[in-house]
Amino acid sequence: MPGTTPQPTSATRTRSWWGWGWADAHPDDAECAAMGALIPGTLAHPLPVPRVRDLDIERPAVEPPAGLAHLVATGPRERAAHAMGKAYRDVARALRGRPGRIPDLVARPTEEREVADLLDWAGERQVAVVPYGGGSSVSGGVEYRGDAHRAVLSLDLTAMGRVLEVDAVGRAARIQAGTLGPSLEDQLRPHGLTLRHFPQSFEFSTLGGWLATRAGGHYATGRTHIDDFVQSLRVVTPAGTSASWRLPASGAGPSPDRLFLGSEGALGIITEAWVRLQERPTHKASASLAFTDFHAALEAVRAIAQSDLSPANCRLLDAGEAALSGASHDGSAVLVLGFESADGPVTARLGQAVDLARSHGGRRGGVDGVDGADTDAAVGAWRSAFLRMPYLRDGLARMGAVAETFETAATWDRIPGLIEAVRTEVGEAALKASGHPATVNCRLTHVYPDGAAPYFTVLAAGRPGDEVAFWDDLKAVASDVLHRHRATITHHHAVGRDHRPGYDRQRPDPFALALRAAKGALDPRGILNPGVLVD
Amino acid sequence: MPGTTPQPTSATRTRSWWGWGWADAHPDDAECAAMGALIPGTLAHPLPVPRVRDLDIERPAVEPPAGLAHLVATGPRERAAHAMGKAYRDVARALRGRPGRIPDLVARPTEEREVADLLDWAGERQVAVVPYGGGSSVSGGVEYRGDAHRAVLSLDLTAMGRVLEVDAVGRAARIQAGTLGPSLEDQLRPHGLTLRHFPQSFEFSTLGGWLATRAGGHYATGRTHIDDFVQSLRVVTPAGTSASWRLPASGAGPSPDRLFLGSEGALGIITEAWVRLQERPTHKASASLAFTDFHAALEAVRAIAQSDLSPANCRLLDAGEAALSGASHDGSAVLVLGFESADGPVTARLGQAVDLARSHGGRRGGVDGVDGADTDAAVGAWRSAFLRMPYLRDGLARMGAVAETFETAATWDRIPGLIEAVRTEVGEAALKASGHPATVNCRLTHVYPDGAAPYFTVLAAGRPGDEVAFWDDLKAVASDVLHRHRATITHHHAVGRDHRPGYDRQRPDPFALALRAAKGALDPRGILNPGVLVD
Repeated sequence: MPGTTPQPTSATRTRSWWGWGWADAHPDDAECAAMGALIPGTLAHPLPVPRVRDLDIERPAVEPPAGLAHLVATGPRERAAHAMGKAYRDVARALRGRPGRIPDLVARPTEEREVADLLDWAGERQVAVVPYGGGSSVSGGVEYRGDAHRAVLSLDLTAMGRVLEVDAVGRAARIQAGTLGPSLEDQLRPHGLTLRHFPQSFEFSTLGGWLATRAGGHYATGRTHIDDFVQSLRVVTPAGTSASWRLPASGAGPSPDRLFLGSEGALGIITEAWVRLQERPTHKASASLAFTDFHAALEAVRAIAQSDLSPANCRLLDAGEAALSGASHDGSAVLVLGFESADGPVTARLGQAVDLARSHGGRRGGVDGVDGADTDAAVGAWRSAFLRMPYLRDGLARMGAVAETFETAATWDRIPGLIEAVRTEVGEAALKASGHPATVNCRLTHVYPDGAAPYFTVLAAGRPGDEVAFWDDLKAVASDVLHRHRATITHHHAVGRDHRPGYDRQRPDPFALALRAAKGALDPRGILNPGVLVD
Repeated sequence: MPGTTPQPTSATRTRSWWGWGWADAHPDDAECAAMGALIPGTLAHPLPVPRVRDLDIERPAVEPPAGLAHLVATGPRERAAHAMGKAYRDVARALRGRPGRIPDLVARPTEEREVADLLDWAGERQVAVVPYGGGSSVSGGVEYRGDAHRAVLSLDLTAMGRVLEVDAVGRAARIQAGTLGPSLEDQLRPHGLTLRHFPQSFEFSTLGGWLATRAGGHYATGRTHIDDFVQSLRVVTPAGTSASWRLPASGAGPSPDRLFLGSEGALGIITEAWVRLQERPTHKASASLAFTDFHAALEAVRAIAQSDLSPANCRLLDAGEAALSGASHDGSAVLVLGFESADGPVTARLGQAVDLARSHGGRRGGVDGVDGADTDAAVGAWRSAFLRMPYLRDGLARMGAVAETFETAATWDRIPGLIEAVRTEVGEAALKASGHPATVNCRLTHVYPDGAAPYFTVLAAGRPGDEVAFWDDLKAVASDVLHRHRATITHHHAVGRDHRPGYDRQRPDPFALALRAAKGALDPRGILNPGVLVD
């Protein structure tokens, strides 16, 4: 993990306003062209890197609040950089010069009182407030898509980025919501503790964003969801600030924290949390196994998930995904297993998991057949590809190609049919819409005793000039498959605006009534992230 | 666990209408007198066993619903037996002939449609509906304490007591809410699976009750709370039936299930759930350790809870609790450790935990010093006392004595001071109010990496004739201590009506607004369990 990476607001590197991560880490034109050449039907030359000065940005529709003007940016670059998240469809819109609605103002409060003041001001003026953490949303979570508000304020929390208190006895810390992943771990490191929450977006996402979207971490089993790490929350709402008690557990009514976890800024602005920490693991062991039969691999994964071995990683790549990441080139699926502990050696547990996998047909060492190394080639290859992937996606987007992912979760009985249906139906829809065959790969990112979370990657030529509609059509097909298989519209990417149709179908109607009523009580003027979750 | 115990509605044994469990299991007069003699200041002779025919029960204020009359009981015994839960204060009220408000009708629906029909009927007539599972509430959760409704219907779910479906692949089952603990395990046993949720009330409580109150199971660490076992819920509300999808995990908005978990019947009637199951453990090992210093024992427990050993039991009894249960007689605190697995031997993990405890001053074998037996005397003694305790409590109540428990949870930094303050302040309050010294014991029932759940037992002479007010005063003192130490008003006994003042102080105000709004949307006529959670 990039522990010492400076904050994205650092003076030393520049964040891309339109694409993933650091501007200087994007593939150049030649690399884009080389990647595009691998996918028939893409453009001959990369689309130009979009420039803020080419956008038609209107003057802000409101003046910054008088007493808070020092917190507010109104420059075109700041506003453009806060217009959208980092989904493929966001990148594609930027490349075609049609980003989402540009917010009128960008505010960076430095303390909770200023958040409350900004909400008061926005409520009085009917200004929509869109909370913004690291800006890595891939589901349309940080943009405004309406016309019912007088103006739009992007509320950037990253100036609230400190670990405020550490309780070494109970292994917990009070942390401000705007703290970005690397900075959070940097601040915890001197205490020998870690939150150990490493989503793929780690470098460019914040604690508050993780909490508001119920983020999933890097680990495959056990405590990996941010939900499980929460002791207490502070949430500023237009109706007052909610502060829950720091508790290891409670049976006092429905959990207050669980109402705000996943509320995506629609019920309030999370300003800080006490979170549970762990000792930094000192014992690690990993291995990979190749499987000729993907269904046998699924059975192996289920057996491991239903044991009490608790691997930190138990990531199953199908043949296509394994080939793409260099973990296998012979059509095998690859299972990557990893164990970690701060308490003692984990090689015995790894051995038991490997034995279980072998009993289902797994072969040690992936494609190379080499046995015995603690960290073998497939593990390393896959990890590098994992962190580089979003940059490559943007490079492919410049070639007019679609490179995008979506994820879900379902019970084991539905997993084989679900994966097959997504592959087939999304693949066929892409072929039909573009005339070119598409690649639809799958990996299991998180596994549970009762089910798994399949993660799909789509690589397709797209429809040059019409990339967004092309992707929206594919995503609608995918969402229909998920719905038919009763697989959730999102396991850890959140609902945002892109997943609203699927979410609206999935969410029980009486719960929608309750959620709408709760929003009405906490946000009576409807200024908080309008368009997400409920209307 | 009493796996083959027949349902409490069985013809072979009779449930006590006023006290815990089976009527024939209550201590007789001589036993009561012998117990009372151990506590100075109690009555000379036991209060008589209360009789329904001595109660002044009015005629029901409403006729049973025409089409549903076959589901409704109106007899005095049925109604009296549904008037209250099984807290000490309920028993004391019954013994003094002053039970809570007797419900007008007791309905036993056999399917979900009938639950909806009963709610419709009750809504039209402004009849309060109090859901009733096993009736084991110890916080005033199943009675009516108001006068705003025309009549009171006790909605007894125990005629909906079947396991409807078992998914052996994903280890889950669809189970009706009225299924009592023993019957639930009996129905799962042929599948080799278990819910493994064993609260102390197991024999006389239902799945629906566990879900509505966020029950804690018998196990000390890991998955022990019913919350963690829920895949999906069906909940009948006056605004329609909420049915969530069966999912291993989801990041789609705030969890719908978590709103209903802990809702205590105020938002809807839980009719069934898909729950996660486990294989029946085949490997077990346990041990106990004695500690001269309670604080050293706390440190030992914290070290074990913060390791990755995951004991099934890690129960720390203070000196008084250990003496009461026969686990120790020399003033030592006793730590009971247990490990279980369906996968493989657990003796190594037990050994590591014992080593950790020894490094903090623990001595193997409790009082007797015997080492090495898998299940030693202290474990057995404590378990027998645990299951017999509620019956003894009722026997002591007949002697005018208070024998009651309450529980909480707090972070580790607060645990030592909290336990000391409860012991001192509740003890002093009892002495002052009764003129007799009281016993206040503590055990840790559940432990977490970041905190623990202390469980307190109070034994006091009481104030003969004024037992309820005496206990209410002590409980108010205890609640004040919990509040000052930011310890939750309940870890697993629920809020009910008895804990409302403490809950109202603990619950964040904006969350109260949201919860009230949700209730208004789901229960617009305010008929669902009025008085719990919100008004």
